[in-house]
Amino acid sequence: MAKNVFVNDYSELVHPDMLAAFAAAGTGAKGNYGLDGHSARAASLIREKIGRDDASIHFAAGGTQANMLVLSHALRPYEAVIACESGHIATHETGAIEATGHKVCVARGEDGKLTASAIAEAAQYHSDEHMVKPRLVYISDSTEYGTAYTKAELTRIREACDEYGLYLYVDGARLGCAMNAKGRDLTYGDLGRLADAFYIGGTKNGALFGEAIVLLSGELKANFRHQIKHRGAMLAKGAAIGVQFEALFEGGLYDRLASRSNEMAYKLAGGIESMGYGFRYKVETNQIFPLLPKTIASALSAEYGFHIWEEIGGYSAVRLVASWATTDDMVDGFLSDLNGAAKGIRRSSGDR
Amino acid sequence: MAKNVFVNDYSELVHPDMLAAFAAAGTGAKGNYGLDGHSARAASLIREKIGRDDASIHFAAGGTQANMLVLSHALRPYEAVIACESGHIATHETGAIEATGHKVCVARGEDGKLTASAIAEAAQYHSDEHMVKPRLVYISDSTEYGTAYTKAELTRIREACDEYGLYLYVDGARLGCAMNAKGRDLTYGDLGRLADAFYIGGTKNGALFGEAIVLLSGELKANFRHQIKHRGAMLAKGAAIGVQFEALFEGGLYDRLASRSNEMAYKLAGGIESMGYGFRYKVETNQIFPLLPKTIASALSAEYGFHIWEEIGGYSAVRLVASWATTDDMVDGFLSDLNGAAKGIRRSSGDR
Amino acid sequence: MAKNVFVNDYSELVHPDMLAAFAAAGTGAKGNYGLDGHSARAASLIREKIGRDDASIHFAAGGTQANMLVLSHALRPYEAVIACESGHIATHETGAIEATGHKVCVARGEDGKLTASAIAEAAQYHSDEHMVKPRLVYISDSTEYGTAYTKAELTRIREACDEYGLYLYVDGARLGCAMNAKGRDLTYGDLGRLADAFYIGGTKNGALFGEAIVLLSGELKANFRHQIKHRGAMLAKGAAIGVQFEALFEGGLYDRLASRSNEMAYKLAGGIESMGYGFRYKVETNQIFPLLPKTIASALSAEYGFHIWEEIGGYSAVRLVASWATTDDMVDGFLSDLNGAAKGIRRSSGDR
Amino acid sequence: MAKNVFVNDYSELVHPDMLAAFAAAGTGAKGNYGLDGHSARAASLIREKIGRDDASIHFAAGGTQANMLVLSHALRPYEAVIACESGHIATHETGAIEATGHKVCVARGEDGKLTASAIAEAAQYHSDEHMVKPRLVYISDSTEYGTAYTKAELTRIREACDEYGLYLYVDGARLGCAMNAKGRDLTYGDLGRLADAFYIGGTKNGALFGEAIVLLSGELKANFRHQIKHRGAMLAKGAAIGVQFEALFEGGLYDRLASRSNEMAYKLAGGIESMGYGFRYKVETNQIFPLLPKTIASALSAEYGFHIWEEIGGYSAVRLVASWATTDDMVDGFLSDLNGAAKGIRRSSGDR
Repeated sequence: MAKNVFVNDYSELVHPDMLAAFAAAGTGAKGNYGLDGHSARAASLIREKIGRDDASIHFAAGGTQANMLVLSHALRPYEAVIACESGHIATHETGAIEATGHKVCVARGEDGKLTASAIAEAAQYHSDEHMVKPRLVYISDSTEYGTAYTKAELTRIREACDEYGLYLYVDGARLGCAMNAKGRDLTYGDLGRLADAFYIGGTKNGALFGEAIVLLSGELKANFRHQIKHRGAMLAKGAAIGVQFEALFEGGLYDRLASRSNEMAYKLAGGIESMGYGFRYKVETNQIFPLLPKTIASALSAEYGFHIWEEIGGYSAVRLVASWATTDDMVDGFLSDLNGAAKGIRRSSGDR
Repeated sequence: MAKNVFVNDYSELVHPDMLAAFAAAGTGAKGNYGLDGHSARAASLIREKIGRDDASIHFAAGGTQANMLVLSHALRPYEAVIACESGHIATHETGAIEATGHKVCVARGEDGKLTASAIAEAAQYHSDEHMVKPRLVYISDSTEYGTAYTKAELTRIREACDEYGLYLYVDGARLGCAMNAKGRDLTYGDLGRLADAFYIGGTKNGALFGEAIVLLSGELKANFRHQIKHRGAMLAKGAAIGVQFEALFEGGLYDRLASRSNEMAYKLAGGIESMGYGFRYKVETNQIFPLLPKTIASALSAEYGFHIWEEIGGYSAVRLVASWATTDDMVDGFLSDLNGAAKGIRRSSGDR
Repeated sequence: MAKNVFVNDYSELVHPDMLAAFAAAGTGAKGNYGLDGHSARAASLIREKIGRDDASIHFAAGGTQANMLVLSHALRPYEAVIACESGHIATHETGAIEATGHKVCVARGEDGKLTASAIAEAAQYHSDEHMVKPRLVYISDSTEYGTAYTKAELTRIREACDEYGLYLYVDGARLGCAMNAKGRDLTYGDLGRLADAFYIGGTKNGALFGEAIVLLSGELKANFRHQIKHRGAMLAKGAAIGVQFEALFEGGLYDRLASRSNEMAYKLAGGIESMGYGFRYKVETNQIFPLLPKTIASALSAEYGFHIWEEIGGYSAVRLVASWATTDDMVDGFLSDLNGAAKGIRRSSGDR
Repeated sequence: MAKNVFVNDYSELVHPDMLAAFAAAGTGAKGNYGLDGHSARAASLIREKIGRDDASIHFAAGGTQANMLVLSHALRPYEAVIACESGHIATHETGAIEATGHKVCVARGEDGKLTASAIAEAAQYHSDEHMVKPRLVYISDSTEYGTAYTKAELTRIREACDEYGLYLYVDGARLGCAMNAKGRDLTYGDLGRLADAFYIGGTKNGALFGEAIVLLSGELKANFRHQIKHRGAMLAKGAAIGVQFEALFEGGLYDRLASRSNEMAYKLAGGIESMGYGFRYKVETNQIFPLLPKTIASALSAEYGFHIWEEIGGYSAVRLVASWATTDDMVDGFLSDLNGAAKGIRRSSGDR
C-alpha cells in the first residue's frame, strides 16, 4: 500500500462530485471563455458566500497563475509587492511575479504571518524614486506553515494598508482550511470586507484544477478579462472550472471538504502529541509540523515521502498534510508506524 | 433545441472517455506537477506517434499559454516571431507574446498559410540592430481559415527557416483535423521531422482542457519546466492533463474524433455546395467558410449564432465549425434551414 | 573633403553653445538626478514656450528611451499603441515598446501621417478581450518622411482620441523642424493644448544628447521619476541635459537651429527641383526625398553615403537631411555634383 | 561657500578635459550609434588596459542602464541574479532588473562584499524548477561601503561561479577607485581574466555621463547591439561617450582622477582618525564611513548635507565621499568644522 499519504493535499486527482458535475453539464453548447452559465452561477454563489454583491469573479487554472494575474493587474511598472519570506510568491513560484516586471519586497513574518508593523516598516523604508514603490500586500491564508490569521490580525493589516495606500491581497490556495480552522473567528464575510482581492483555492480542496479569483476593489475590476487573455490564462472552456466551483459552493461541499482535511490533521496531531512530541508551528489547519527525533523522522520520511522541513537541535520538523481524501485508517497507520519507530529506537538505544 | 451547433469546436464540454479516464485514475497518490505516471505514459505515446524518441513533452492548460511558453522560451529579448496576419498570436491573443517582450512581425499569408517566400522577405528586411531579429516562424495547422499545409509547403518553409536561422513552430490547436484532412500528405512523422516545436491541441478535440507541447530542437528542451513555472503555467495536478492525453492517444481516439469533425464539415459543405454556393477558402478541415447571400447569412446567423467573417460583394463569408459532437441530424437540420431560407428569399423576390 | 553631409542630422557632435553652457555650469555641487537648478530652469522655459504652467518636464538621454518611458508609463499591461507603419516605434526601435510588454498596432498613414479615420478604424477593430485594447496614439512630428501635421489634422486626431478614450503622444525627435516648417500653422501652444504628452528632441537639433519629455495629462504625471529609474533611464548627472535645454530655450536657439536646418533643405530642394526632378514626399522640413534617375542616385549615393529610400520605376527616392551645421557651400557642392552627374549621364546617352 | 562637498562623487558636472575633447572632436560627420572612430579608439584603449584583445566594448549612458543591459542579455527568462543585500541592483535601482523579468536573489555580504560561500549557499538553495535558477553573480567594486575586493577574494568568487555555472559580473561605477585602492593587489588584467563582464564607470570619475560595458565571455557578445537598442539605450550620437572614454584612457587620466579621489578620502579619514573617531567600514577607497557622536553628526549633516548612514549606539555612521574635484581646502575646512563641533560639544558638556 502506498504510504505517501501525508505528502500534500493535491495528490488525490479529483473529488467524485466534480466528475458528476462534468457529466451533468453534459451535451449542448455552452458559452465560452468563462462566459457560460455554470461560471455565472458559481460566481453568484461565491458573491453570496462573502456578502459582496459587487464582487467581480474570474477563474484561473492554478494558484501561481491567479497570483500573477491579480498582482500584475494591480501594479504600475515601478510598483512592488510586500510579502513575508515564506510567502509562496517570494521563493516558490520561479520568479513568476518578477516575470511581469515587479519586485517582491520581503518583510518579517511571524509563524508564516505578515504583521502590520512589518508592513509599515517596509512601506516607510521605500521612501523615494530610487526604490520601488510598495503598492500591494500579499498574504496567504492559511499560511505556508499551516497557521491562520485572526480577525484582529487581518484588521490591523487592513489598517496598515489603508495608512500606506496598499492593496491587500490574500492567496487562498488553502482558504477553505483557514476558514474552517479551529478557534478561527475570521469569516468569509470579513474577508470580503477587508481584502481588495483574494482567490479561493479549488485545486487543494477537491477540484481537478482551478481557482476562483475575487476582485473587490473597484479599480481592480476594470478590464480583467483583457488581463486574463494577455497573460495566456483564458481557457476556451472556462466552464470546466465554473462547473466545479458550482459543485463546491452549491451545497457547502467546499467547507465540508476543508473541515474534513482539518479534522484529519488534528487527529494526527493529537496522536503525535500524546506520544510526547511538540510542534514547530501551532496546529491550526491541515498542515502540521511535528518535531520528531531525527532518526525517526528520517526513517518515516523514507517510507512516507514527506518533506523534512527544518533541522532543530536533534529534531526534524516535518510537514504532514491531510486532505479531504485522508481516512482514519491512514492516520491510525501513521501513528502506529510512528509508535513502532519510536519503540525501535528506544529499544536499540536500550540494547547498548 | 439549441441551434448554435456550428459556432465553434469547443462548446461541447468534454468527451465521455475523459471522464472515464479521470475516474479510472482514481484514488491514491500521484506524482505532482506533471511528474506522474499518466503524463509520462501520454508523453511516450506521443513520442511514438511522431517517431521521435528524443522529443520532450510537456502539458499546458490552453493554446495561448502553450504559444507563450514556447515562444518566450525560444527567443532572446530582442528576437521576434514571423507570423501571417491571420495568425492567432498576431491579433487574437491580446498581446500575450508582446507581454513576454517580443514583437510579432506580420508577413503575407495565402489562404491563412505562411509561405517560404514571405518568410525570406521578412528575414531579409530585418537587416540590422535597429530592427528586431526574427528567430522563429509561427504557423497554425490547420490554419485559422481551415486550410492545411501540404508536405511540400512545410518542407519549403523548413528550408527557408534553415536558410535564415529560424525555428519552426506549429500551433496545433486543431492539429488533429489537419492531420486527418482529406487529400493530406503530411504525416505526424513529417511534423516530428520538420518542426522544432509544436503543440497538439486537446481542448478542441475532446479534452476538457489541455494541450501537449512537443519540443524537438535540443536547445529548446533545457529548463523548460523552469519556464512553465516562471510563466505561472505549472499545474499542481498536472496529471489532470496527462490522463486525458493518455486516453486520447492510447487507442487512436484523437484521430477518430478529428476525422469525425472533418467528415461532418465535409458533409455540411457538400450540402451547401449542392445548393450552388461557393466557399471563401478551400474546404479541407472542420472549419468551412461558405459564401451565402447577405440576407440569408444574416437570418441564419441570428438563429445559429455563427460568425459573419467577411462581406464580399452581395455575399457574406460565414464560418461554420463542426466538432466530434456534431451529429448527422445537426447537419441535416442546418441544410434544411438554409434551403428554407433560400426559398423564402427567392419567393419574396418573385413577389415583387 | 568628407561628402556625407546629407546623411542625417545627428552627425555633428554638438553645437558650441552647449559646450559653453557646460563650462559655465562650472564647479560647485549641483542637485542630482535631474533635481538641479539648470533642469528646473529649462523646464520652466519649456512650460512658458508651450503655455502650460502645469506641464511636468523630465529629461531622457535619447528618443527611443523617451518613447519607451512614456508609453510604458501610460499603458496597463493589455493596452496597446496605435502608430502608422512608418512610425519609428513600429519598425526601427528593435521592439523597445514590445520589450515593455505592449503591442504596437499598425494603422494606415498618408505621407507618414496618421489620420483620424485610421485611428477610428483601429479603435473599432479591437472590440473585445481577445484583442489588445488600444489606449494611446503615437505620431511623429515632423514625420519620418519629413512632413508636418497641420493644426486641422492634429485637431481631428485629438477629436478621434477623445472619442475612443486614447492618449495622444507626439514623438518630437525633430519637433523644432516641424514647428518651423514653411506654411505651418501649428504652434507650440497648440501642441501643449492638444497632446497628452510629447517630447522635444535635442539630439537632432544642437544638443550633444538629450530629449525633454513633456507630460500634460494629469494621470501621466504621477510617479514618473519612479518610472524613469525603473527603466534604467535616470542619470546621476541629470544636469548634463538640463544645462543644454536651458541653453537651447533661453534665447530662442532651438528655433533658430531648426529654422536653419529647414532653410538649407529648402534651398537644396529648390536647386534639385530647378533641374526638373520631383519629390516622393512634400518638402516641408529638413528631410527631403527627391526622385532621381537610378544611375544618378546610385552614383551620388556612393559618394555622399545617403540612403536610397525606395525604387519607383526608373527613379530612386533618396533621403537627404540638412542640419543646423549644413552650409551654403555644402548645398552648392551637392547641386553641382548632381548637375555634373546628370550631364555625364545625358552625354553618355548621347554618345550612343 | 557651498559646503555640500562630500555628499557624493557626481556633483561636479564634468572634468574640463571632456569639454576639450568634445570641442576637438569638432565638426565633420561622425559614424553614428556608437560606430564612430572615437568609440572605436576608446574601446581599443580599454582592451589594451585589461589585456583582452577579444573584449567586446559598448557604451551606456548610466550605471543602472549598464546593469540592466548586461543582466537581461545574459539571462534566460527564469534565470536570476545573486547579489548581496547592499548591492545597488537589490534595493536602489527601483526594480530595474525585475523590470526585465528577473529576480535578484539576496545573499549575505561582509562589509559590502559578496563571499564565495554565500554564492555557493544561494546556488545550492535554488534546487528545482519551483525556484528561479541563479545564473549570474553581481558584485560592485568598489562596493557600496567603499571596500574593494582583493585578488584572493575575486579568485574564490570566480571558482564558486565556475562550480555552479554562474557568470561573474562586476558593477564598476567606481572601478577607478577600486583599482587604485591602497594596498590593492587586483589589477585591470585580473579583472579582464576573472570576470565575464563588467562596466567601467565614467559618470563618477570625470565624465559628463557614460559608462563602458566590457563583455568578455563569448556567448555574451552576440547581438549586444540589438539588445542596446531593444532596451532604449542606443544613442544616435554614441560618439558623445566614446570621445570621453578616449580622453579618460588615452593618457592615464582615468586612474589619476580616481587616485586623487582616494587620496583626498584618505587625508580626510586620517584627520578624522587623529581626532579619535573610528570607522564603520575599512577605509579603502573614496567613500568613508566615520562613526561620529550623534550630535556632531547631526550638526555637520545639516551644514554639509551628507547622508546619515546608520545609527550605532550613540554614534552615527556617516558617508563622506571625495572626488577628483575635492581640494585640500575642502578637506581642511571639514576637519576644522568637525574639530570645532567636537570642542563645542565637549565645552557644553563641561558647562553642566
